[in-house]
Amino acid sequence: MTAVPAMGPTTGQASFYEVIERRRDVRAEFTGERLPDDVLTRILGAAHRAPSVGMSQPWDFVVVESDETRQAFRDHVTLERDLFRDSLPSERRETFDRIKIEGICESSVGIVVTYDETRGGQHVLGRHTIADTGLYSTCLAIQNLWLAATAEGLGMGWVSFYREDFLRDLLGIPAGIRPIAWLCVGHVSHLETVPDLERHGWRSRRPLDEAIHRERWRA
Amino acid sequence: MTAVPAMGPTTGQASFYEVIERRRDVRAEFTGERLPDDVLTRILGAAHRAPSVGMSQPWDFVVVESDETRQAFRDHVTLERDLFRDSLPSERRETFDRIKIEGICESSVGIVVTYDETRGGQHVLGRHTIADTGLYSTCLAIQNLWLAATAEGLGMGWVSFYREDFLRDLLGIPAGIRPIAWLCVGHVSHLETVPDLERHGWRSRRPLDEAIHRERWRA
Repeated sequence: MTAVPAMGPTTGQASFYEVIERRRDVRAEFTGERLPDDVLTRILGAAHRAPSVGMSQPWDFVVVESDETRQAFRDHVTLERDLFRDSLPSERRETFDRIKIEGICESSVGIVVTYDETRGGQHVLGRHTIADTGLYSTCLAIQNLWLAATAEGLGMGWVSFYREDFLRDLLGIPAGIRPIAWLCVGHVSHLETVPDLERHGWRSRRPLDEAIHRERWRA
Repeated sequence: MTAVPAMGPTTGQASFYEVIERRRDVRAEFTGERLPDDVLTRILGAAHRAPSVGMSQPWDFVVVESDETRQAFRDHVTLERDLFRDSLPSERRETFDRIKIEGICESSVGIVVTYDETRGGQHVLGRHTIADTGLYSTCLAIQNLWLAATAEGLGMGWVSFYREDFLRDLLGIPAGIRPIAWLCVGHVSHLETVPDLERHGWRSRRPLDEAIHRERWRA
């Protein structure tokens, strides 16, 4: 079996570990069906309840439905995809060509998540030794959003084939604020059970045991 | 009501949104009771099933139980806490003094999460335009871990009052690998319903509406 049906409206009660297991990085399975406002508010609410350094909540969410904006972004991403493709050794290029890397126009909505490093003022509790902690917080919100979308029976895919300046200009994001992700979110026909990059032979998953060290780094 | 009881052993079936809502950044509520191996494996397994750029899975987990290591880290954190305290205006200092910032020695276990930027080789799919995407992936794993701990009825708190070089030396982490977080994880007496920083008057939560923009950044 390589696919599971979308979960449907009862999924608010899906168990936590089911959601972790079902979550995929979606590109090809979007149906484009419109997202109800209450669902969008629930998943953004989950993102907004993420923890953040010094409770700075340094994120914002730009919800993009406009076809024109999405097409412009998709065209930019296609150029960057081709640049990456050109950088690959030929055998990797063949594998890469089998992989769809974005569902920008096919998804129900794009959600751009940004990071404002000035949020919380000069003395952010917990950030004085590590400037990136605000960036980390923004990613925690993204993962809440991803899992909430999965719990709702939706799919989500993170697109990172873009230049930050391009996306900032496209959406009128101020210079000091950094776009962290373009997230394609929406209804899906199904969710694959094996990640796309594994199914297409790009890369295999690492065993958990290799990632766990006891007391000190294992040489 | 300011506290809810820990969820207990049936929590594997907690609904997803309950877990999002109950999750807190825990400092004062740890009991120190030992964590069973199967629980530790389940929550690390949830972290390891996070999405990652190009399926690079660039994270590692160093599980620290040693009292000696934890005390050394706690002493370092205390010094950094005092430096931060000294940087505050006096009225903020009074608020800050009410806040416990870590539960390093009281928690059941410390989990240090690291980021290896060489994982996945030279051509990480989705990272050629934005070097930080591997760092972002590591944070997604941390949020999976945080929510899994919450679903298990445990508490977790992220300690960031440290210098990365100190923690690298303490655990023998190689120079090219970056420690991203020290996570205090363990059994708790209860989880607070209001975040510590809000309860103690450090900062209030931002309304969700302010964080949502439609189509373009709202000036």
